Amino acid sequence: MTDAPFDSSLPLTFLGPEGTFTEAALLQVPGAGAMLRIPSTNAAAALAKVRAGEAFAAMLPIENSIEGGVPATLDAISKGMELRIIHEVVVPVSFVLVAPAGVELANISSVGTHPHAWAQTREWFGEHLPLASHVPANSTAAAAHSLLEGTDAFQAAVCAPLVAEQTGLNILAAGIEDNMGAVTRFVLVARPGSLPEPTGADRTTLSIAQPDDHPGALMALLEQFASRGVNLSRIESRPTGQFLGHYVFSVDLEGHIRDARVADALRGLHRVTAEIRFLGSYPRADKQPPLIRPYNSDTAFEDAAHWVQALR
Amino acid sequence: MTDAPFDSSLPLTFLGPEGTFTEAALLQVPGAGAMLRIPSTNAAAALAKVRAGEAFAAMLPIENSIEGGVPATLDAISKGMELRIIHEVVVPVSFVLVAPAGVELANISSVGTHPHAWAQTREWFGEHLPLASHVPANSTAAAAHSLLEGTDAFQAAVCAPLVAEQTGLNILAAGIEDNMGAVTRFVLVARPGSLPEPTGADRTTLSIAQPDDHPGALMALLEQFASRGVNLSRIESRPTGQFLGHYVFSVDLEGHIRDARVADALRGLHRVTAEIRFLGSYPRADKQPPLIRPYNSDTAFEDAAHWVQALR
Amino acid sequence: MTDAPFDSSLPLTFLGPEGTFTEAALLQVPGAGAMLRIPSTNAAAALAKVRAGEAFAAMLPIENSIEGGVPATLDAISKGMELRIIHEVVVPVSFVLVAPAGVELANISSVGTHPHAWAQTREWFGEHLPLASHVPANSTAAAAHSLLEGTDAFQAAVCAPLVAEQTGLNILAAGIEDNMGAVTRFVLVARPGSLPEPTGADRTTLSIAQPDDHPGALMALLEQFASRGVNLSRIESRPTGQFLGHYVFSVDLEGHIRDARVADALRGLHRVTAEIRFLGSYPRADKQPPLIRPYNSDTAFEDAAHWVQALR
Amino acid sequence: MTDAPFDSSLPLTFLGPEGTFTEAALLQVPGAGAMLRIPSTNAAAALAKVRAGEAFAAMLPIENSIEGGVPATLDAISKGMELRIIHEVVVPVSFVLVAPAGVELANISSVGTHPHAWAQTREWFGEHLPLASHVPANSTAAAAHSLLEGTDAFQAAVCAPLVAEQTGLNILAAGIEDNMGAVTRFVLVARPGSLPEPTGADRTTLSIAQPDDHPGALMALLEQFASRGVNLSRIESRPTGQFLGHYVFSVDLEGHIRDARVADALRGLHRVTAEIRFLGSYPRADKQPPLIRPYNSDTAFEDAAHWVQALR
Repeated sequence: MTDAPFDSSLPLTFLGPEGTFTEAALLQVPGAGAMLRIPSTNAAAALAKVRAGEAFAAMLPIENSIEGGVPATLDAISKGMELRIIHEVVVPVSFVLVAPAGVELANISSVGTHPHAWAQTREWFGEHLPLASHVPANSTAAAAHSLLEGTDAFQAAVCAPLVAEQTGLNILAAGIEDNMGAVTRFVLVARPGSLPEPTGADRTTLSIAQPDDHPGALMALLEQFASRGVNLSRIESRPTGQFLGHYVFSVDLEGHIRDARVADALRGLHRVTAEIRFLGSYPRADKQPPLIRPYNSDTAFEDAAHWVQALR
Repeated sequence: MTDAPFDSSLPLTFLGPEGTFTEAALLQVPGAGAMLRIPSTNAAAALAKVRAGEAFAAMLPIENSIEGGVPATLDAISKGMELRIIHEVVVPVSFVLVAPAGVELANISSVGTHPHAWAQTREWFGEHLPLASHVPANSTAAAAHSLLEGTDAFQAAVCAPLVAEQTGLNILAAGIEDNMGAVTRFVLVARPGSLPEPTGADRTTLSIAQPDDHPGALMALLEQFASRGVNLSRIESRPTGQFLGHYVFSVDLEGHIRDARVADALRGLHRVTAEIRFLGSYPRADKQPPLIRPYNSDTAFEDAAHWVQALR
Repeated sequence: MTDAPFDSSLPLTFLGPEGTFTEAALLQVPGAGAMLRIPSTNAAAALAKVRAGEAFAAMLPIENSIEGGVPATLDAISKGMELRIIHEVVVPVSFVLVAPAGVELANISSVGTHPHAWAQTREWFGEHLPLASHVPANSTAAAAHSLLEGTDAFQAAVCAPLVAEQTGLNILAAGIEDNMGAVTRFVLVARPGSLPEPTGADRTTLSIAQPDDHPGALMALLEQFASRGVNLSRIESRPTGQFLGHYVFSVDLEGHIRDARVADALRGLHRVTAEIRFLGSYPRADKQPPLIRPYNSDTAFEDAAHWVQALR
Repeated sequence: MTDAPFDSSLPLTFLGPEGTFTEAALLQVPGAGAMLRIPSTNAAAALAKVRAGEAFAAMLPIENSIEGGVPATLDAISKGMELRIIHEVVVPVSFVLVAPAGVELANISSVGTHPHAWAQTREWFGEHLPLASHVPANSTAAAAHSLLEGTDAFQAAVCAPLVAEQTGLNILAAGIEDNMGAVTRFVLVARPGSLPEPTGADRTTLSIAQPDDHPGALMALLEQFASRGVNLSRIESRPTGQFLGHYVFSVDLEGHIRDARVADALRGLHRVTAEIRFLGSYPRADKQPPLIRPYNSDTAFEDAAHWVQALR
């Protein structure tokens, strides 16, 4: 399976249960369909399996184009034993309304689903089932599974298309999401040891402790990227939990640690921040290469290094 | 009611139902206890009441020391008709386990609560009720109210102390949160027209569109703060929903728009960003004044303005 | 004489003696030809006349395209009673070789001139009079006047074309300068009180004390210009004389103090530096307008000020 | 001669004639007193001897605490074949008034000296010989030598103490300079090949082409120093001679190219500027070590390099 980002006899895990968007994302990874896939109940549990050597890698949602970063994932990969993102998948977020055989729209008074899914289908329900009430579930897939198990708390569920496929529930309506074009980005997280090769269109993820709480502290970090022409595609501040206003910055940047400008920025960051964690360099799902000016190219860095070396 | 940040015959609203931490926060506002208080089912609904003139102001959670920013609030105050934060309250997050009379620990097999509350009491349950399962609810207060209404889905609920007080449910255990010292910051949001006076220990909240997606774009924004010695106490990137990686920055800074250095930073931002929204200047709950260097004081700004004025 | 930058019954002064490039520059100022013009022996003496009210203004060289800034002028305008540059003239530096009637090239063994003029005609002499020796003079005009007075220290002088015209000495060779295209910039300096109107192509001259001797101190000054899109056309460090490495920066910037971006940069500088001196805003001789981005225009500054004013 | 910064059978040269402050500076270099020393008539001529292999090194004035940078030296070392500064000497500027035997103060009507020396002794002459006129000379030493040769153009000369010693002229007054404490910094310039060892208190001299003429261009250069905590002890803009306002920056920084932070700054500069010239790293005459923060130490750079290397 030469295209697969892994070669392992260990199973894979994902944010379950079966049928979630996360499993759909995992199935897009070359080779994953043929491997054992174990659902985990949350991000921390999935990564615990990886850290313990019980799973080779875990697929987790990291960012949604509507909801933003996924705190549980961002926090779980930034603490504890070091891990590396080795692959990324972007999946369109599209919802279906499912129900057991025999249930029609007219029979639905309550709908089970995850609160996020409910929030993202407000317009469709406002128009088609304005009187339906929401019963919260831990995941969209869990709500669907409850229907299979004969729950009487609700008559239909909002879930990912994959769940309908896996469970055989009837699809009463498809594409019911309010925001057409919404996507979720998922990452496959493994133990260190398998840095993917640079492809020219890569992403690097970091977790950086805020150096100090004074005007310009964040700028001092960002300057390390800007001065090497390294663009940030995502920056999130996550609380450390120590006190209100104390943050760790979760950052995605365009490029690979084997790119000279990225390596140089990381060296600069390592000097000015108390703590920085490298969470991996991996190919971008959209294969979009960054714009690199000549003076930030690998060649420019090499020339500069040679010039100084000769003078020293 | 001279200390109250408002003078209105309209009711107040808050993220309900009754007994939430949000209502507890609202009750800390001088004068709020004597006013009509209407619960809202979510942040958008609460602000809709304010915008429609049906409520004078809405109390909403904006930031938690463990979970970070509250996306629903951040997004709802940044879009639509302009609003202003006029007051802030910080409330310790402490949970109690409640049950109807007659129920004891030994009788509990399922516990109803909001997923966040469940996540923040994992250690206590691991030790005292390791076999209890979680039934998700839309809020901690909703779970408690379900007990009053005789639900048989669970026998106990995790909720705020205020709920126990209001409902008369028995407190089986108090202080069961894993993170002692966790706090949530709440803000009271009204229509423009009532800018609180500067106190010397104020906060200003802004929503700023990212100017452009290139290396240094975020730095160009932050430079406007740093060059005037304005410290940021919170910065969050929230997706605009247009496409992955397109953000609005939600920012809290130390100071009041009537402080010269803050006004000057806002003027600079207005020039360099396509869109900026002022969400209010209001007293900090912790009454902590910022450190201001002499060259960033109001006097320094006035002297500079006079000097240039005389030369022109 | 409506185009003249002055209206005064006082005489003008210039770096003499008569016939220097400086007098040539002064004669280019509209109206100056009709006024009394008094030579001064050096920059300090010329400005002393202005400060004492004995002359309306002094014309002095400030910058040469080959030699750089003119220290005597830069230092004299930066210390003592405040003065303002009100006009600028750029004059091509072209030298002629002059001698009394009857003297031919073959008769010349020594040449009198100012050391700078000698340095800038090395190639011509190397080719045409390789054996001629140099006799230093205090100015090119002084050397020519010595010939008139019958000196026997040298037989010819290198000077400005104006001197040949004024003295009637013979021109043996013209255009003998090594660097075709060299120019000198001259400024007319008066007492405060007559700020020239903005023309859209102006220059502003400042003298700025170095704020502090640490990495980034100079950057903190330059940031005030860069953050408002104000370009510097000249920056020179001049020793304060206190100790080696202690400087005042002499700066020319593109724009007029009545331009909003320039005024804002000056306000910023006034805050961050211990001492700043405004030396005038005046039309550029080359009438070249600066490039101003929309967000640095007067309109952008006005819009920003109105926005903040309305919020306060 | 182990302390000497050179080991050569070639002679040394200096800005002559004999007895100048420059020769005094050269004599302070360990070992120089025992070597052949050839005067040169100007900086360009001195460096031509070094470049041609006729002299091992040239001593030249580079900076004066009153007059600032010495343009002739700055320009001559920045153009043509590459050279390196290998030693620096700081000499107090103190003048004496000398005359042949038999001449007394009362006999003096004209004084020969270099215009700079005349400018720096104005106060003494104003008080003691207010009627004396100035006869310009090419150097202070040249004026003294003219007295020896029996000139009748002036009766006394202002020169360095060394000239009095070498010529045997009488010293009529000593310490006649207006600015007590003025010093001149001299540098010894050789061909590449002999980089002095770091001492912990070093200086590095660079010549850097301005990258581009837009707001912030100079800042982009300075940022390379500031971001590594490298302090500049001198910055001068020298015209390139191409057109008014086109500069090369002559810069002294605190540190040695073998210091990691300096090497890193040079690598950064090499990338962002079209042209940069390294003019040497050499011990500071004042032996003053720079302040280096822990995150800019050699260790911090090594740690950062190892961290990134391990990740790659």
